[in-house]
Amino acid sequence: MNEEILLSVGGGGEETQKFLERIILKYLGNHLLNALEDATPLEVSFKRLAFTTDSFTVKPLFFKGGDIGKLSVVGTLNDLAVMGARPRFLSLSLIIEEGFPLRDLERILKSMKEVLSENGVFVVTGDTKVVPKGAADGIYINTSGIGEIIYPGLSAKNLKPGDVIILSGSIGDHGVCILAEREGFKFEVDLESDCASLFPLLEPLFQSSLELHALRDPTRGGLAGVLYEWARASKVDILIYEEEIPVKPQVRAFCEILGFEPYHFPSEGRVVIAIPEKEADSALETLKKHPLGKEAKIIGRVLEKREIPRVYLETPYGTRRILELMDGEFLPRIC
Amino acid sequence: MNEEILLSVGGGGEETQKFLERIILKYLGNHLLNALEDATPLEVSFKRLAFTTDSFTVKPLFFKGGDIGKLSVVGTLNDLAVMGARPRFLSLSLIIEEGFPLRDLERILKSMKEVLSENGVFVVTGDTKVVPKGAADGIYINTSGIGEIIYPGLSAKNLKPGDVIILSGSIGDHGVCILAEREGFKFEVDLESDCASLFPLLEPLFQSSLELHALRDPTRGGLAGVLYEWARASKVDILIYEEEIPVKPQVRAFCEILGFEPYHFPSEGRVVIAIPEKEADSALETLKKHPLGKEAKIIGRVLEKREIPRVYLETPYGTRRILELMDGEFLPRIC
Repeated sequence: MNEEILLSVGGGGEETQKFLERIILKYLGNHLLNALEDATPLEVSFKRLAFTTDSFTVKPLFFKGGDIGKLSVVGTLNDLAVMGARPRFLSLSLIIEEGFPLRDLERILKSMKEVLSENGVFVVTGDTKVVPKGAADGIYINTSGIGEIIYPGLSAKNLKPGDVIILSGSIGDHGVCILAEREGFKFEVDLESDCASLFPLLEPLFQSSLELHALRDPTRGGLAGVLYEWARASKVDILIYEEEIPVKPQVRAFCEILGFEPYHFPSEGRVVIAIPEKEADSALETLKKHPLGKEAKIIGRVLEKREIPRVYLETPYGTRRILELMDGEFLPRIC
Repeated sequence: MNEEILLSVGGGGEETQKFLERIILKYLGNHLLNALEDATPLEVSFKRLAFTTDSFTVKPLFFKGGDIGKLSVVGTLNDLAVMGARPRFLSLSLIIEEGFPLRDLERILKSMKEVLSENGVFVVTGDTKVVPKGAADGIYINTSGIGEIIYPGLSAKNLKPGDVIILSGSIGDHGVCILAEREGFKFEVDLESDCASLFPLLEPLFQSSLELHALRDPTRGGLAGVLYEWARASKVDILIYEEEIPVKPQVRAFCEILGFEPYHFPSEGRVVIAIPEKEADSALETLKKHPLGKEAKIIGRVLEKREIPRVYLETPYGTRRILELMDGEFLPRIC
């Protein structure tokens, strides 16, 4: 193969075939994908499935704690997991800029392969387009996913007054990591993206007899985005205790210097859970058994029903302020 | 809404929410998509499903006979249909360049809506990313699709010596239309993309008792691409009768002037079928009942098994030449 991706790789002819066989199947091959049919037949034993899609345009492509390959798998697996689904099948669609280094593509595919096999998930169908130089910035990746719903009924509409809000770990690591690397900010302290697959953390919850109301991974829009989505869908006020929210010192410093709030920065390996208060202790105990849930804690509670709901932050001094929903454009290409 | 797409539309905050509610749901809303959850729960009654994905980067975005919206629906529906599946659910992921005119986006969504409702298919999950100016060229669209397999067992590996090859209509219309519009070639005669959903044409075949071996829509790589894919997967030689292949005069003229062969130009609404000879007449009769199949005919046959298979063209004079597989890069962004 040429060391750079050529337009002919996307042409549908001889070069496309070679590229699929020598590059894509080398990393992602399995008995379903190898057939390279126009669509892949799947026999499933479940009738409740979850379907999701996400395109990844993150810049830089490689960052501490991950890369666009890992992110594009984890992001879609997590969207399935928070709906109570065991991730099963992925599709993979690449839009590559002409001239993109094959070495970088292989690094990305290797990283996808690792996280796929850790999670027992297969890419079963795919597509590659190559666009001329200047018509994209490196590579964009779409993954869509099919999962088997093992805990039905989770929904943003399910929050009830009296529910508590659990958060699995520190917020904003991914967003600050990407922004710092892209903009060239330098930190003394290392900060990695928290990019991780959440299903292994969540599976024991789904298999317990606990009553769960809603789950979300706080990606674009951050924690604030999730809480407002829930508040509006369920028409309830939500109260968050500011001092209970785990924020790493380097994330806090970054935000203070630049005038941001950590609640608006995305994570890619955290989960927020709305759950009846009586179930919270058991849920925390279950979560803490997994490395991704060690820091899990209650960070807030659902207040009363409200036609125009708000999310409040209670400061350590007991005062309340409204948590603002980010509406800016300061975080393009964060995932 | 602003008249141009801003970065904030992809930010996951207030503007994203407004965009989804006022623009996306206005055209594509349905009870499944409206929930706007991270993944969409689907209850299905079938156990054999087909899964496919495709990204569309076509340039120009609007062309005679269609646009990127129609193409991105039809392309994925057809990938399902040729595997014997009734298209059921689509995902939609947009990568939009900052500053893209909202008017154009609405035109694209309207066109998707039309072809979706004609085909009884719903977009059930989606994603929107906005990248800064210069990081994409207008808009790229990914659709993934889930279908219900109603005719199992179709595969590129299924061709048998003695099968005949049926083609549903003229080839190359889509490719020549796009290239001519993009490069500014002028034709006296109108030529539209053949972009169309094939399932309505194929459903009666699937519901008949006919034995079908393989189906493909000749998109990227053209008719030659399909025939070589089949020949290699089934390890058979294939013979095509050149004078039997329907090629519109304006497609032929375009190819002759520029030194191309029509066999390499994509179609987006044609199907190639490999079928036992004894079934061919009934299949043709069935196909001809649908407007998309009026010109259906036998264009070739499967010859003997071969380790290194070839596709031959028989000229009107009875001589044979090898059909070349396109390996160039002359058709980027054709779909």
